[in-house]
Amino acid sequence: MQHSDILSRFGLTSSGAGLTARSPVDGATLATVAETAPSQVSDIVANAARAFEAWRSVPAPRRGELVRLLGEELRAAKEDLGRLVSLEAGKIYQEGLGEVQEMIDICDFAVGLSRQLYGLTIASERPGHSMRETWHPAGPCLVISAFNFPVAVWSWNAALALVCGDPVVWKPSEKTPLTAAACQVIFDRAVARFGDAPANLSQIVQGGREVGEALVAHPGFPIVSATGSTRMGREVSKVVAERFGRSILELGGNNAMIVAPSADLDMALRAILFSAVGTCGQRCTTLRRLIVHRSVKDQLLPRLKAAYASVSIGSPLESGVLMGPLVDADAFKAMQRALDSAKAEGGTVTGGERTLADRFPNAYYVTPAIVEMPAQTEVVRHETFAPILYVLTYDTLDEAIALQNAVPQGLSSCIFSTDVRETERFLSAAGSDCGIANVNIGPSGAEIGGAFGGEKETGGGRESGSDSWKAYMRRQTATVNYSSALPLAQGIKFEIMG
Amino acid sequence: MQHSDILSRFGLTSSGAGLTARSPVDGATLATVAETAPSQVSDIVANAARAFEAWRSVPAPRRGELVRLLGEELRAAKEDLGRLVSLEAGKIYQEGLGEVQEMIDICDFAVGLSRQLYGLTIASERPGHSMRETWHPAGPCLVISAFNFPVAVWSWNAALALVCGDPVVWKPSEKTPLTAAACQVIFDRAVARFGDAPANLSQIVQGGREVGEALVAHPGFPIVSATGSTRMGREVSKVVAERFGRSILELGGNNAMIVAPSADLDMALRAILFSAVGTCGQRCTTLRRLIVHRSVKDQLLPRLKAAYASVSIGSPLESGVLMGPLVDADAFKAMQRALDSAKAEGGTVTGGERTLADRFPNAYYVTPAIVEMPAQTEVVRHETFAPILYVLTYDTLDEAIALQNAVPQGLSSCIFSTDVRETERFLSAAGSDCGIANVNIGPSGAEIGGAFGGEKETGGGRESGSDSWKAYMRRQTATVNYSSALPLAQGIKFEIMG
Amino acid sequence: MQHSDILSRFGLTSSGAGLTARSPVDGATLATVAETAPSQVSDIVANAARAFEAWRSVPAPRRGELVRLLGEELRAAKEDLGRLVSLEAGKIYQEGLGEVQEMIDICDFAVGLSRQLYGLTIASERPGHSMRETWHPAGPCLVISAFNFPVAVWSWNAALALVCGDPVVWKPSEKTPLTAAACQVIFDRAVARFGDAPANLSQIVQGGREVGEALVAHPGFPIVSATGSTRMGREVSKVVAERFGRSILELGGNNAMIVAPSADLDMALRAILFSAVGTCGQRCTTLRRLIVHRSVKDQLLPRLKAAYASVSIGSPLESGVLMGPLVDADAFKAMQRALDSAKAEGGTVTGGERTLADRFPNAYYVTPAIVEMPAQTEVVRHETFAPILYVLTYDTLDEAIALQNAVPQGLSSCIFSTDVRETERFLSAAGSDCGIANVNIGPSGAEIGGAFGGEKETGGGRESGSDSWKAYMRRQTATVNYSSALPLAQGIKFEIMG
Amino acid sequence: MQHSDILSRFGLTSSGAGLTARSPVDGATLATVAETAPSQVSDIVANAARAFEAWRSVPAPRRGELVRLLGEELRAAKEDLGRLVSLEAGKIYQEGLGEVQEMIDICDFAVGLSRQLYGLTIASERPGHSMRETWHPAGPCLVISAFNFPVAVWSWNAALALVCGDPVVWKPSEKTPLTAAACQVIFDRAVARFGDAPANLSQIVQGGREVGEALVAHPGFPIVSATGSTRMGREVSKVVAERFGRSILELGGNNAMIVAPSADLDMALRAILFSAVGTCGQRCTTLRRLIVHRSVKDQLLPRLKAAYASVSIGSPLESGVLMGPLVDADAFKAMQRALDSAKAEGGTVTGGERTLADRFPNAYYVTPAIVEMPAQTEVVRHETFAPILYVLTYDTLDEAIALQNAVPQGLSSCIFSTDVRETERFLSAAGSDCGIANVNIGPSGAEIGGAFGGEKETGGGRESGSDSWKAYMRRQTATVNYSSALPLAQGIKFEIMG
Repeated sequence: MQHSDILSRFGLTSSGAGLTARSPVDGATLATVAETAPSQVSDIVANAARAFEAWRSVPAPRRGELVRLLGEELRAAKEDLGRLVSLEAGKIYQEGLGEVQEMIDICDFAVGLSRQLYGLTIASERPGHSMRETWHPAGPCLVISAFNFPVAVWSWNAALALVCGDPVVWKPSEKTPLTAAACQVIFDRAVARFGDAPANLSQIVQGGREVGEALVAHPGFPIVSATGSTRMGREVSKVVAERFGRSILELGGNNAMIVAPSADLDMALRAILFSAVGTCGQRCTTLRRLIVHRSVKDQLLPRLKAAYASVSIGSPLESGVLMGPLVDADAFKAMQRALDSAKAEGGTVTGGERTLADRFPNAYYVTPAIVEMPAQTEVVRHETFAPILYVLTYDTLDEAIALQNAVPQGLSSCIFSTDVRETERFLSAAGSDCGIANVNIGPSGAEIGGAFGGEKETGGGRESGSDSWKAYMRRQTATVNYSSALPLAQGIKFEIMG
Repeated sequence: MQHSDILSRFGLTSSGAGLTARSPVDGATLATVAETAPSQVSDIVANAARAFEAWRSVPAPRRGELVRLLGEELRAAKEDLGRLVSLEAGKIYQEGLGEVQEMIDICDFAVGLSRQLYGLTIASERPGHSMRETWHPAGPCLVISAFNFPVAVWSWNAALALVCGDPVVWKPSEKTPLTAAACQVIFDRAVARFGDAPANLSQIVQGGREVGEALVAHPGFPIVSATGSTRMGREVSKVVAERFGRSILELGGNNAMIVAPSADLDMALRAILFSAVGTCGQRCTTLRRLIVHRSVKDQLLPRLKAAYASVSIGSPLESGVLMGPLVDADAFKAMQRALDSAKAEGGTVTGGERTLADRFPNAYYVTPAIVEMPAQTEVVRHETFAPILYVLTYDTLDEAIALQNAVPQGLSSCIFSTDVRETERFLSAAGSDCGIANVNIGPSGAEIGGAFGGEKETGGGRESGSDSWKAYMRRQTATVNYSSALPLAQGIKFEIMG
Repeated sequence: MQHSDILSRFGLTSSGAGLTARSPVDGATLATVAETAPSQVSDIVANAARAFEAWRSVPAPRRGELVRLLGEELRAAKEDLGRLVSLEAGKIYQEGLGEVQEMIDICDFAVGLSRQLYGLTIASERPGHSMRETWHPAGPCLVISAFNFPVAVWSWNAALALVCGDPVVWKPSEKTPLTAAACQVIFDRAVARFGDAPANLSQIVQGGREVGEALVAHPGFPIVSATGSTRMGREVSKVVAERFGRSILELGGNNAMIVAPSADLDMALRAILFSAVGTCGQRCTTLRRLIVHRSVKDQLLPRLKAAYASVSIGSPLESGVLMGPLVDADAFKAMQRALDSAKAEGGTVTGGERTLADRFPNAYYVTPAIVEMPAQTEVVRHETFAPILYVLTYDTLDEAIALQNAVPQGLSSCIFSTDVRETERFLSAAGSDCGIANVNIGPSGAEIGGAFGGEKETGGGRESGSDSWKAYMRRQTATVNYSSALPLAQGIKFEIMG
Repeated sequence: MQHSDILSRFGLTSSGAGLTARSPVDGATLATVAETAPSQVSDIVANAARAFEAWRSVPAPRRGELVRLLGEELRAAKEDLGRLVSLEAGKIYQEGLGEVQEMIDICDFAVGLSRQLYGLTIASERPGHSMRETWHPAGPCLVISAFNFPVAVWSWNAALALVCGDPVVWKPSEKTPLTAAACQVIFDRAVARFGDAPANLSQIVQGGREVGEALVAHPGFPIVSATGSTRMGREVSKVVAERFGRSILELGGNNAMIVAPSADLDMALRAILFSAVGTCGQRCTTLRRLIVHRSVKDQLLPRLKAAYASVSIGSPLESGVLMGPLVDADAFKAMQRALDSAKAEGGTVTGGERTLADRFPNAYYVTPAIVEMPAQTEVVRHETFAPILYVLTYDTLDEAIALQNAVPQGLSSCIFSTDVRETERFLSAAGSDCGIANVNIGPSGAEIGGAFGGEKETGGGRESGSDSWKAYMRRQTATVNYSSALPLAQGIKFEIMG
């Protein structure tokens, strides 16, 4: 399929001016996309406010029907959108499809939620009183997403936000404007079938840092969900907190795997491959640190290096390819800088070179890097968005857990072990300090049924399953006195001769 | 009872230097309390970190036992502590007792929680996988409290935090160091009976803004619970957010009551009195705005003024008194400024003068003020911590709800109406935008079983009941693969020839 | 559309022998349906057991996918199935569509559930222990349904049971075998799209009492969901309890509406009509008792009689008709017997005669009956499945609630009042004793998001929303000791010198 | 301490006639206790009904206060009651204390619950509607308990029932009337401190089968909680089901331990001892079947036999004793019959003889029996309430799980294994079919925080933690229409020209 064919499937055409969408596959320009000016922000916010005014009073199960239709449209567009993700973000087509599947899954989940959104009825201490807690729509939700999951992140937020009664404004990465535009097209299809949705339930802001900052600072967004770098997230966190908004932050990860003596090494090997090399090391949940027990390192590492050598690198649109390109030249430079630092800090690097430069002179394909480190040095504690896997060794589980936790980030973690004492300890209060802790699974690839997110510099936000939906709502504690008396809580006596 | 007698019940003596605790009752100095230097903060944080290391692995039901003992000790000390609260904060003894009762209630509640702290087991999409969400202790919790609830706020936080596995560091208001010191004494009694608690589970920092800022900025506190002014809270919110900590903010309220045509005016009258005049208008949930339907204003207002005139003002330690003093001269000045502004903005003021100045020349007793306003002007939208009740009128419920919501704060709200269509509408998504919404109850006096807190400039935090405890813990999403296969979520295919 | 055309839409043909399906519309035979012999029960149970063995280990979200496809197929077949329901059960087409919509709704809901089925993780009192509660599939579920909701009841059970991992065996009413057969056809369409479901996830048993008894008694069904008469339910309850199975009983209702002085009489009138006359008074939630405040009776009753007189009665397949026929001659006789008893017990009857006998000599159309009773006599306390509305008066709310509760059944109830003190009291522990209690809504027409069912002779079962799904699963409380010590709960000391 | 001294601590004296309480310790008569005649049942029920009428409207947190006081009184009486349990039931003093501790724990837990009893608020599909689910008191609760946990079972039920608003009527075992009477004394102490509880919140019925049957059949008990034999429970189940009451059944267990090759055998050994020999094998959770992997049997069995030989048997009141007597001669005979059957079915018996007959001629002390069985024969599938441990071997985990599940009972189960694949499989849908499934813990000694109970012939009831409290309440699904329209669910159209 031609690039332009994919765009035409969504009715997308080049705008002539604005953001330039380039494909990491070959560096070619895909299209230009009209940019939103910061001056348009106030109109966008006003649109969202109007949509909120209407949408919050639409019954939640009816809101769910819109999301159900969105899920149907996503099912219908799965292959097209998967391909466009592959083209614009550079991940392999299988992962593009997986990302769209996640969108579909979260829609199904949100439809179910739309008849729940459970608050509580609560036993009151006062006779003739009833107490309850209800969750109400919170207001427009701003979604900021990154290039590496150019569509799923929006849907995680949008499916829940819409069911919760909140309109969505989405500022996608400047690097992936086309997939965002395609999502809007798909959303509009659902809206058309739905019939009577208020206008502007979903709006897209295409642009860069300046317009992003204007959005983040605007009090019209009580909810800001931001996915991206810790640097960006820190700024969002501060600005939103100062105006008493609520942030849902999904920032950096520095995810580790502990490989214990009892591990099934075949499984560990496969898990490492998928999570360290998949998406060219550019997932927030990419495996970046391998903490191997000394006794198994010599079995594992040679096999791992052999597997790395066998990874087929190439255009992510071609079948059989497991690893596509880095997103751009900057990513390549950052990777090289990290490898240089690693060497300077005592590391031994295998791989990590540019490849396929002949075929794709304007794209950045690399071989994945394994870096054996003498200790968890500075570069290891830093998240570099590239396929670099640092290897450390340990002797006791305590030591392994301490290494795992001794980084500023707290997203995902895992242990490969068949010893239940080890695995449960890893999952305990004294174990991994991450938001996600897996056993005999790599750090990547969470199911949408669980809450997704992490601690520390990862930002503390949670999206997707469990009660993550509460972040999109406001909580109301209500007590109704249906008696003719007015008792005070805590048995306080306060009597007047009125 | 002599002032010094109360202090001696807790073994408190004057330190000679440091913070001066004065009684709002008569302006007299009660004692001086040693101040914590900012340089001591790092030691305090290190103590808390050590306590956390041990406490997080103590089983939660055992942690609950400490809180149960704390509840027993609070029961034993209820009258003493209630009296000290009255003396140091100036609220009437009945309210002092009520505040201690809240401490007891939250301890009972937290003991029950200690065998719950429920996470979820979740259906996994992959065969041979089990998924669960567990809540783990989050780390040391910093509590910043205000003078008006000098002991309850600490206990709401401490009871939950301790059960959740988090040590507590408490910086009470500079105006109420003695009640804080007494709480520490009571806590130590519980610890002594408990036996093997780690040292420093609860620490107190006595001091002012400088040491407070040092605490708030410290990364050793992943949780900061701050109660007080919006100005203070905004700063805390920003600083903590920037370092990716979590804030629990309980800031300003500007709480309103809507009195509908169908209201039971006798009940409304009593509720207004308690919530507007109680604690001399210095509760975060004090009633500040009365939004009366035009048709009942003329029935209600004269009766209200008569009731105001009959309120017995005086030393809060004396029985029969319903209204004690403002906390200090600054509070008095702020009140006068607000009344001046109100007049300038068209208001008609009844009451609000200083009284009992002869008997208490160094204390600030006032008559409570009723201010009839032509509109919800600037001064009305501002929280003044004093017994000023602004009166507004309305014609339609929509208008009343709009008035209720058109202030920056979002803590508590209520409606007096017997019409279920009105009351449910008030509680709906299109109703009150506050965290607390009551029907036929004033805005004050929440039960501990519900979540307490509010939206907008109130800061969004929730304490006490419902699932407020989650704010003191970190969430872990864990998936255990107990099969021998390694399926990927979303059905992704990623196969190597390892 | 011809009757046979509808059957052909589902590929249904007459079997030549077996159960005879007759249409209440005109008494005509629609088809004969092959009957299941009691001797076939053991094979059916064995099939279900095999299906269970496989299905319980299919991940719940994948099980949800089957139910999602079932929902899609139901959407596609909505009009056909709605028409067939109308034809075979005699309810008007609009209600037939509504019933199918409920099937669709429960499928959507169950899909969401399939990623939840939440158990709990629980704080353990022992160090190095983790505790959790997990819900596992319980085993084959037997569904017994009645003629009046010939398809929805199956779907409420089947959608949840299938997601919960339980195969379903369905014995529909002998009076509605065709709609059941059509559901199986629709289910098979979903299975075909699903791909790899085990055989016999859903089986139908067509037949009467004998085969029903054989099924109920069989230990192969740990779960029996039975909807129908109290007489039938009592027998099921006893037999299943004796073999330690679990019953979900949805039996008789004797549903009342209290009309208070403050009621919106226009709304009350419309609600009475729909719930007393709809489905020709043959819903389990049909309004059977009207408890009117003495002060409004004279306003309401004449209007009600006028409305009754204007109800268009006729073939339920014709548009504009609001009330179709009774299901058969027995129903007609039972109605007449009840009206005779009512007269004998002092009642004044309006309506209740046979009508349209000329046009439909073999069908039983009646005018709906209003019966003013001097007291809640025996006939009033009995459920007669026909459009008879007994009218009682009351003076105080206490009296009205006492009347409401003084019947053996406990399904649905409602109050029409705009007074929040009355409505909340009605919903309180001292209010209605029914499983369903509505305010300003008739007793019929529950949403699927709430738990549906009732107390006392209604049987205590709950289906549909909230945590009704737990009835289809077994609960496992698990504690994992991952330490190397073996502490006992409750601190028991028990030491050996092993 | 003299026997009579213990009785006097509770003010208990011999009644002269009635039930004879004998001590299993030495067979001596402790006292006679007045028996309740079946003719008194109606008065007792009427008392309970009156108590319910008042208690259900007492706010739940206030009801919790009574349970808190009960907990305090139990703490104060712990040693006395523990000793009396030991004396009357024959279990060792340490276990008597443990049983009282469980009573205390459940009181603490119930106090917390008293501010929860959470229902749900639920998103409604209709505009202007709010939906919620509330749990209301269900009515008087009948508790039937067995001799082996003569006090804890009552408290599990009573603490929850009382907090849930239900009065309790208790029929203890005829073998343990004194401990029951002591509990009533303790309860009365709490009531006296509480102040204004209605009379008869707790009543005791002392007597045998006849009065028990009269109670069970009475419709005045919507809730019947019965602990004891499967034979008794089957009868209760049937009778209560037929009258549409709700049973909470805690019946027989036939609890197994799987010992896997990777098990920590030291821990397994200790766990076997405590759970097979403790309470002289007369717990419902006693370990009765040991399913050992063939590869470890020869390591484990000799050590187990040695440990059995070293168990100190004697008066349970003496310190150092681990195993007291069987409850009476019937228990001894049943044990001997079982051992005879086991031999006849191919078993090899070690131990199981009477001992200490010289010292205690009227009591029944036995040595604990280990019976190596060639297969899981009939006697093994039967619960014999005595210290008999059947030993079976297995080769694959599938086989072990199949053995574990192939008995009619489904209470408790466990695996000793350090392999997470085995342990999680044991806990999965395809694993243990019991209500309780432990890993590296014996089958006995559940914490009160989890739900306690089991499947199949164990009866399906759950008590204690999690949401077991719901069994003591009735669920109300309420929808409030606060709009002026009357939309129907499922979008049904039903319009009249009223």
